[in-house]
Amino acid sequence: MARDLSALFEPRGVIVTGVSSHPAKFGFVALHNILSCGFSGPVYAIGREAGTVLDRPVLASVDDVPAGEADLLMICTPASVNEEIIRKAASKGVRAVFVAAGGYSETGADGADAERRLVALADELDLVMAGPNGQGVVSPPASLCAQIVAPYPPRGRIGVASQSGNFVSAFLNYAEQTGVGISRAVSAGNAAATGVADYLEWFADDPETEVGLCYIEGLADGRDFFERVREVCRRMPVVVVKGGATSGGQRAAASHTGSLAGDDRIFDGMARQAGMLRAATIESAFEAAATFASQPLPAGDRVIVLTTAGGWGVIAADAVTRHPDLTLTPLPADLLTAIDGMLPPRWSRNNPVDLAAGETRDTIPELLDLVAAHPDVDSVIQLGLGIQGNTAAFTRSGPFFPDHGLGRIVDYHERQEQRYAEATTAASSRNDKPVMVASELAVVRPDNPMVAAVRGSGRLCYPSADRAVTALGHLTRYAAWRRARA
Amino acid sequence: MARDLSALFEPRGVIVTGVSSHPAKFGFVALHNILSCGFSGPVYAIGREAGTVLDRPVLASVDDVPAGEADLLMICTPASVNEEIIRKAASKGVRAVFVAAGGYSETGADGADAERRLVALADELDLVMAGPNGQGVVSPPASLCAQIVAPYPPRGRIGVASQSGNFVSAFLNYAEQTGVGISRAVSAGNAAATGVADYLEWFADDPETEVGLCYIEGLADGRDFFERVREVCRRMPVVVVKGGATSGGQRAAASHTGSLAGDDRIFDGMARQAGMLRAATIESAFEAAATFASQPLPAGDRVIVLTTAGGWGVIAADAVTRHPDLTLTPLPADLLTAIDGMLPPRWSRNNPVDLAAGETRDTIPELLDLVAAHPDVDSVIQLGLGIQGNTAAFTRSGPFFPDHGLGRIVDYHERQEQRYAEATTAASSRNDKPVMVASELAVVRPDNPMVAAVRGSGRLCYPSADRAVTALGHLTRYAAWRRARA
Repeated sequence: MARDLSALFEPRGVIVTGVSSHPAKFGFVALHNILSCGFSGPVYAIGREAGTVLDRPVLASVDDVPAGEADLLMICTPASVNEEIIRKAASKGVRAVFVAAGGYSETGADGADAERRLVALADELDLVMAGPNGQGVVSPPASLCAQIVAPYPPRGRIGVASQSGNFVSAFLNYAEQTGVGISRAVSAGNAAATGVADYLEWFADDPETEVGLCYIEGLADGRDFFERVREVCRRMPVVVVKGGATSGGQRAAASHTGSLAGDDRIFDGMARQAGMLRAATIESAFEAAATFASQPLPAGDRVIVLTTAGGWGVIAADAVTRHPDLTLTPLPADLLTAIDGMLPPRWSRNNPVDLAAGETRDTIPELLDLVAAHPDVDSVIQLGLGIQGNTAAFTRSGPFFPDHGLGRIVDYHERQEQRYAEATTAASSRNDKPVMVASELAVVRPDNPMVAAVRGSGRLCYPSADRAVTALGHLTRYAAWRRARA
Repeated sequence: MARDLSALFEPRGVIVTGVSSHPAKFGFVALHNILSCGFSGPVYAIGREAGTVLDRPVLASVDDVPAGEADLLMICTPASVNEEIIRKAASKGVRAVFVAAGGYSETGADGADAERRLVALADELDLVMAGPNGQGVVSPPASLCAQIVAPYPPRGRIGVASQSGNFVSAFLNYAEQTGVGISRAVSAGNAAATGVADYLEWFADDPETEVGLCYIEGLADGRDFFERVREVCRRMPVVVVKGGATSGGQRAAASHTGSLAGDDRIFDGMARQAGMLRAATIESAFEAAATFASQPLPAGDRVIVLTTAGGWGVIAADAVTRHPDLTLTPLPADLLTAIDGMLPPRWSRNNPVDLAAGETRDTIPELLDLVAAHPDVDSVIQLGLGIQGNTAAFTRSGPFFPDHGLGRIVDYHERQEQRYAEATTAASSRNDKPVMVASELAVVRPDNPMVAAVRGSGRLCYPSADRAVTALGHLTRYAAWRRARA
């Protein structure tokens, strides 16, 4: 059974230690971030300077906190004082501790001793302890931003657990950029008492979380980890990035998190058996997780590529063909006939379905639905959108706008782009199949009306055909793994 | 000897055909884009409606254009009328023709006949002919945006030639996003008379261009192409993306550009022998080209990773270790000793050099220069910058700013980020070695002061450690190829 982490992610109130008036100190920053992001429960600041910080009274000790008000203790004080603080906090009803402070096992033998005592104390007091030496915990459903870094991500369905704080930040940054949000995020720090498997298990039961996203450098007990994650994967997809996959990375991990070298092929094989989706990069890991959070699972591996731009069709066809988990399926004969009735003869008559500029006002929305509805199609990748909107933006910024009929044509292009994006979401929802849109404009011009409308639907606009194919590969592989165990 | 394409990329004046008052028609759009982007030479609009379009008089025929004023004819009229137009234009002194109009070989046998006649005519009249069925030509040094799509990129050192107009647009979009600009760009369209090799040969002689970037689907004469490109690569690096690398992509290419399937391993081997850098994706191709355009060539393959964030160091170490053209070099003993004197003992004492939060105000700039100056280091990847600036942006947007000392600390963080970025450029220039900065903030928060300062230096801020390593791999491989042929 999953360990109950609700006091960490859904605390009634929070106590922050180490609060001072210096805005570069962890205690100040943690307090600032909690207060800034709208946490609605009581927040208590503990520090050595009397007075107020950020308009909050600074209490001299946890003794001064009323009992039963705070579940979470956020520790930004030196190792030497923290055991006493934890003991006092437990007596006030605190049930979870996030130790942001460093000075533990990452610093050597003395720190390791202090860390062992911390673990023993948490056990004794029956506290959930996260960290030490971690960046914090974020929980948008609780409006909680208890971390010492930026940013605070939009609320969503991705649960993040990472052995590196950098990658929590990276995932939160991607969430901010794409709008595909986060349910919970935690930097495991030294993971002295609570590790990635604990977080994933809790996420699997959490109604806010649909997919787990984690970064791992090393595992003290690999078999235990994989047995637990296999159970998690039966209920929720889990995307993983593994650092230290090579000898060079393993040496770096040894000095970063103290992780021992493991055989990467063994990790890979176990991840595959457990149903974890292993991403090659931090960026593709986020995109895979965002896909699980926003697209339905496909019933099979048959992909159709739809494009208004030939080159993108070629590149996508290469990527799908290369992918071991996807099939660039032959265009079904009845679909070919139906499309023949909608487009001039120069269209590709093949998969990719290349419209070859044969579309009229309604062709793209109609085609999308037709293709997505076909029983021999499991997922659709739509390419070549956004171009009209990009030309509109360029025209808007030119010296002739809005005269010479330019106002009208720009409006038309922008409305069309929005319609196309809405059509992809509608085709996906109506047919319960993944329909993915890719364009470099996702990154280059997030204000493109197509990109904005995809974002508005809660989905990812993939920055390239290749990246859409990679994400769809994870989705398709996981769906097959689940079907095989149904 | 390279064919003279100066009339295409540096015309004195331009004639546009097919101009009408309808803002969705190619003639209107081409005229709009040329006029909007500030081309300083004379521009003549030819169309069937009398009056003005975009405040320009519309001439009924090329006959009405004064002789000797225009070098470039941009054709947006149907195939049936173009031969006569070209003949007239040549008599007015036009030396280059870009045929944006379609209706040629991409439409079937009749179109192919018309295309052959066009080629014969261009030969007869000694005209450079680009296209047909292409998006146009862009040449920022001449303030020329003779294309029917967006955007118009910033001026830079990358010369683009593509068998797909989509990918010209994609590369121009990336140039706009990153600020690493374009010298020339041309959509080869059907490449009836002028192909990618012609463009690359001219780029190699062009003082505005430092690197060629191309997309290829098929080659009529592969041996000729590679022999010509090998000569180009002795003078200038060339980055290529090959579409139709798989059976699925080849079928798509056949219906897109009519390219015949070729054996991908043969292409790969020939590209390698010719010294071309083959990129896996459109995105990584741009990043490789941008790297050639903005970083010096390394003298060897020995890479040092510098990081303020441990996880990024691990991931980068994995990527460098995996890369066949790069070596994660052991940290030289004297460098280790020197860094020992600058950092507290918890730093990694290894490559990656992980500062482990041991830095003071000046450590990063000093370390960068120290590492880049070492004779056993050929290139440097700097990670973990931008975090202070990201926190500053978050703080700026919070409810407590600028009081409580926040104004001061935000200013400090932002100044520091700018200093770090300037230090990377200085370390690179002073030591004539590649020094690359990577952060997801490049894409997520282009207004981050570190990202903005890297951009201000004319360099790319790589969106991830993996992508920086991929780009550095191309740079290092090309440098080795050149040394082997010196």
